[in-house]
Amino acid sequence: MAVKPSIPKGTRDFSPVEMAKRNYIFDTIKDSFRLFGYRQIETPAMENLSTLMGKYGEEGDRLLFKILNSGDFLKDVSDSELNERNSVKIISRISEKGLRYDLTVPFARFVVQNRNDITLPFKRFQIQPVWRADRPQKGRYREFFQCDADVVGSDSLFNEIELLELIDNVYDKLGIRVVIKLNNRKILSGIAEIIGEPEKLTEITVAIDKIEKIGIDKVTDELRGKNISEEAIEKLRPLLSLEGENKTKLMTLRRILSDSEIGMKGIEELETVTEGFDKIGHLSEVEIDVSLARGLNYYTGTIIEVKAKDVEIGSITGGGRYDNLTGVFGLPGLSGVGISFGADRIYDVLNQLNLYPENISESVKILFVNFGEKEALKSLGIIKKLRENGVSCELYPDSVKMKKQMSYADSLAIPFVAIIGENELSEGTINLKDMHSGEQWKLTEEEMINHLCNIAGESNGL
Amino acid sequence: MAVKPSIPKGTRDFSPVEMAKRNYIFDTIKDSFRLFGYRQIETPAMENLSTLMGKYGEEGDRLLFKILNSGDFLKDVSDSELNERNSVKIISRISEKGLRYDLTVPFARFVVQNRNDITLPFKRFQIQPVWRADRPQKGRYREFFQCDADVVGSDSLFNEIELLELIDNVYDKLGIRVVIKLNNRKILSGIAEIIGEPEKLTEITVAIDKIEKIGIDKVTDELRGKNISEEAIEKLRPLLSLEGENKTKLMTLRRILSDSEIGMKGIEELETVTEGFDKIGHLSEVEIDVSLARGLNYYTGTIIEVKAKDVEIGSITGGGRYDNLTGVFGLPGLSGVGISFGADRIYDVLNQLNLYPENISESVKILFVNFGEKEALKSLGIIKKLRENGVSCELYPDSVKMKKQMSYADSLAIPFVAIIGENELSEGTINLKDMHSGEQWKLTEEEMINHLCNIAGESNGL
Repeated sequence: MAVKPSIPKGTRDFSPVEMAKRNYIFDTIKDSFRLFGYRQIETPAMENLSTLMGKYGEEGDRLLFKILNSGDFLKDVSDSELNERNSVKIISRISEKGLRYDLTVPFARFVVQNRNDITLPFKRFQIQPVWRADRPQKGRYREFFQCDADVVGSDSLFNEIELLELIDNVYDKLGIRVVIKLNNRKILSGIAEIIGEPEKLTEITVAIDKIEKIGIDKVTDELRGKNISEEAIEKLRPLLSLEGENKTKLMTLRRILSDSEIGMKGIEELETVTEGFDKIGHLSEVEIDVSLARGLNYYTGTIIEVKAKDVEIGSITGGGRYDNLTGVFGLPGLSGVGISFGADRIYDVLNQLNLYPENISESVKILFVNFGEKEALKSLGIIKKLRENGVSCELYPDSVKMKKQMSYADSLAIPFVAIIGENELSEGTINLKDMHSGEQWKLTEEEMINHLCNIAGESNGL
Repeated sequence: MAVKPSIPKGTRDFSPVEMAKRNYIFDTIKDSFRLFGYRQIETPAMENLSTLMGKYGEEGDRLLFKILNSGDFLKDVSDSELNERNSVKIISRISEKGLRYDLTVPFARFVVQNRNDITLPFKRFQIQPVWRADRPQKGRYREFFQCDADVVGSDSLFNEIELLELIDNVYDKLGIRVVIKLNNRKILSGIAEIIGEPEKLTEITVAIDKIEKIGIDKVTDELRGKNISEEAIEKLRPLLSLEGENKTKLMTLRRILSDSEIGMKGIEELETVTEGFDKIGHLSEVEIDVSLARGLNYYTGTIIEVKAKDVEIGSITGGGRYDNLTGVFGLPGLSGVGISFGADRIYDVLNQLNLYPENISESVKILFVNFGEKEALKSLGIIKKLRENGVSCELYPDSVKMKKQMSYADSLAIPFVAIIGENELSEGTINLKDMHSGEQWKLTEEEMINHLCNIAGESNGL
């Protein structure tokens, strides 16, 4: 009967302390999303496979978790398909739903499906888990949360500026110093155009991306190894050593890309965005980085990536503009721009820098020790009043040894313990103990309620 | 290419307005859970099928959503199994994970798996979706949220009393008038014992449950139809017309069940719980109802069910005590007691009684009209300051016709619109319009920030 309990690999339980930390992150992000006018939606965990398949490349199709049809799931599979063991054919017969792989495709599906009820531009945020049948490894899970904010239905670069402000706002509140890296897909297209190798854009950006790690010479070797002409490499050279202020970089880019219309358009966009953001003011560092190419086949304009300055970790936020977000679902011509916060990495950054607010793992403010039925009922009356005043508290449910009850308070980091024993009951007093300092006070009911409500008001954390 | 977008039957998208209402419910429940010392956990959407199977009866096993193994999922299926089309055998070979069916089994699994890190008694709450491959119908979905609070590791009836207080607290805040119905499984066992038909407990409670609808005579007929003896029916008669105050009902029960030890134990428990709850004080009506038998094969002590007084709808909260919660996972002897709030039904009740707070569908407090780049950048500077003061606001991203921007504000129920056009820009003023009253003010930047921060402070809803 006894099953040794475990959870599927790549998935996690979250304990109360972990939840407190995660909620702190999600709540901070949500507050900023709302402050900026993004409105929350949620979509189902399961989508039709017809919605999901073909949207994430071959690899993505493979990594989708597929749900077995209910009932007699074999009824649509022919004998010959079974005999052939044709996995691909059989899957399409026995499964028509899959788990959400990201939040962008469901969002696009939502917009098209609800097009008549949505006012454009539509600024939505969405914080939900996604599932990928990836090989689990350190920091990579099969179930993880995405926190996305997107605007659909507006081409204005003010959307980009607002998203940068949003990033600035979130990391300011979390206390994480960040660098926001910016690029524009049109600049990458311009580069490919200028060097006459448009089809080798991926190889070029991958190589540029390695400059910091391996140096210009090795990058040049790598480009040669990929059959990129000497002439093209020569033209690329100034890009490989693009340095200095953003303004200087933009000037250099203008010189290099002056013959590419699309490249110049990209520079103009990037300039509008960085100048606008600078004008409004921000705490984050902003760095133009022409090697930034996240989701190359997806973004069409601005590309955004955020790195923590004080921790070695991958990007903690990313995003960009993608034209024609909803085209695949039959609604062409809608441009979108959005960002996604990586909650799991932010969690690690806050842990490493010890940036969580104090008391985050505190459960209630006060535990009432249980000395038996009469005392406990008296306690519950006081507890009721405290709760009406917003003070979280609880009665230890069993009248067991004092030591056990105190160690419960300890392990749950409960800062105060209230004792109403026989004496206190007859005197009409309460013995209140501060678990940090060890101080004790003998108080009347009213005094204690006032005392604890003041504390609750000050710490503002109840 | 264009796929007509849809979602799987029985699942739902939630729009921003629906999300605002749902968040209001979840936040209210969560606040109470925390106020009472329940601590949040989350478990993965996917559990191993070995964890889930056999826990919800045959019907439940059938209704579990099963996830196809990734990769070559057919590799462990033999040719003969394929040829036989043996669904049950094949399922166990091609699927080893399923979607969470409720929150109780994952909680029990969590407790056993993390037994060394948990301090008992463990008061946990959990608010997550669950999935059931039920036939969808009005009010029944294949994906829905459960909001559970449970205590594990304490036999004390103070847990029951606190859970009743918690129910009282939540519905007081939501403004829903409720009746809390109470029973005890031991009383039901006592009844079966007294009438000498212990194995017919289910039939008896099903029949008792129908008294209000069909009357005593028809219930008696039904009992006869189920081969329950005349003598037993005679003994049941006083139970079928149990009326009056809870105290009176308890007295009658004591008389009827005096020969049943377990029955008397149940009465004693019920009395302790109702008297304790009355002593502390509550707003909800409390009604002892011996026909209450939810989850008969599951609960072992107190049984709780909550009905809304002003709306015809099923139970909106339910729960009870179940001994040996974790036994099936190899950790015997732990008793649990808990309740579950039905968010979907509460949503309907609040809608029908129109009890949502005003402004719940409001997105931001203020929209800045966009008159072009210079004006928009000026607006963004003011917006930044407003946001720093906690006022949610946004710039319309495109400089399109005024009418279009105003109708955006209208459809999103934005209460204020700020206009900074050429004149205002040169004067250093802002034209602020109240969208409800139509009033307009010409204000300086500082005046507007003060004005809106005051409003934000008052409404407390930003």
